[in-house]
Amino acid sequence: MQFSDAFRTELSSLMQWRRDVREFKTDPVDEALVDQCLDAFLTAPSVGLSEPWRILRVRSETARENALKNFNTANAQALGGYQGAQKQKYASLKLSGMRDAPVQFAVYCDDSTEQGSGLGATSMPEMRRYSVVCAVFNFWLYCRSLGLGLGWVSILDPDQLNTDLNADPNWSLIGYFCMGWPKNFDDTPALERAEWEQRRGHLIIEDR
Amino acid sequence: MQFSDAFRTELSSLMQWRRDVREFKTDPVDEALVDQCLDAFLTAPSVGLSEPWRILRVRSETARENALKNFNTANAQALGGYQGAQKQKYASLKLSGMRDAPVQFAVYCDDSTEQGSGLGATSMPEMRRYSVVCAVFNFWLYCRSLGLGLGWVSILDPDQLNTDLNADPNWSLIGYFCMGWPKNFDDTPALERAEWEQRRGHLIIEDR
Repeated sequence: MQFSDAFRTELSSLMQWRRDVREFKTDPVDEALVDQCLDAFLTAPSVGLSEPWRILRVRSETARENALKNFNTANAQALGGYQGAQKQKYASLKLSGMRDAPVQFAVYCDDSTEQGSGLGATSMPEMRRYSVVCAVFNFWLYCRSLGLGLGWVSILDPDQLNTDLNADPNWSLIGYFCMGWPKNFDDTPALERAEWEQRRGHLIIEDR
Repeated sequence: MQFSDAFRTELSSLMQWRRDVREFKTDPVDEALVDQCLDAFLTAPSVGLSEPWRILRVRSETARENALKNFNTANAQALGGYQGAQKQKYASLKLSGMRDAPVQFAVYCDDSTEQGSGLGATSMPEMRRYSVVCAVFNFWLYCRSLGLGLGWVSILDPDQLNTDLNADPNWSLIGYFCMGWPKNFDDTPALERAEWEQRRGHLIIEDR
């Protein structure tokens, strides 16, 4: 199986235009499209073939309100850690699309799974979580290829979220995800547009 | 920026044919191609735009020998945790391409970076590491689009590797990577072909 220069050019565009989306339309997403995107989890690499990803679809009004409250509390705490102009800037940022995004998930890693019999996860058990992150990223790229946006929310108290969602105690939260049709497409990170930070555009590589 | 059905079909193929490669040819990889692949790190998402990825290129004979020794020790320890037929099966698996892969990297996360001013990483500091995993996965897909293989080695003692590579003490090891021209292409995981484990082919999704 080989890939052409033309495909690679489009792939690079996809990578460039895959953004963390925080501004969603409230329009629903066809469930068939959601399923199609979720299938991308299944082609992700996983340590020992453990497939440790577990997904909670957050649908109920109560669960969504709790998650939003959780974000608001964590975000207010984070704001308290900044001062002066940086604090004002932080306060002006929109850091989650949880109010509008029609589809929301909490994604977990099952650290207790026996699938894979522990292969590859003995000296680095965090590999299971990293497998789930790879799967999320596969999913993210596929969403964007369909014009759907994904937003990763990490400004949350994981323990509170897990309690509110009644998550299995063996599961670790990887992230909370908002999915939907973005209000705008962009090839520049929102935090760069908002002048919070800029990409440095080079890699630090040292020889050994 | 929109993407076509034809592109998505090829993207799905890329995801399907992106494998964890452990059988490499020893042929060198043009450094321009290596650089082109590494550029994919720079389009990855990173929490707060912190770009916490740090890369050690493992070039010297000594560094490679130490890394291989580290793998062999960790692999022998892991083998000791299995019994009977499973132990025999484990012993028969080829779990790294470190002896042959012409290009090798240790990839780290700089947990101490000030870039991004901590945004998004207060309540979930592990987000920096997850950002590096996303970058690795972007890189992995791009490598495969060029016909290059990547293998992620996690059967290692991270502390020993970091000492041997004289890594910055603020950096956390994400993984050790082998890169090169694969001996074979496949759309099925090596561990499934070896009958170690099989993919379950469905997602566990629960509503909340």
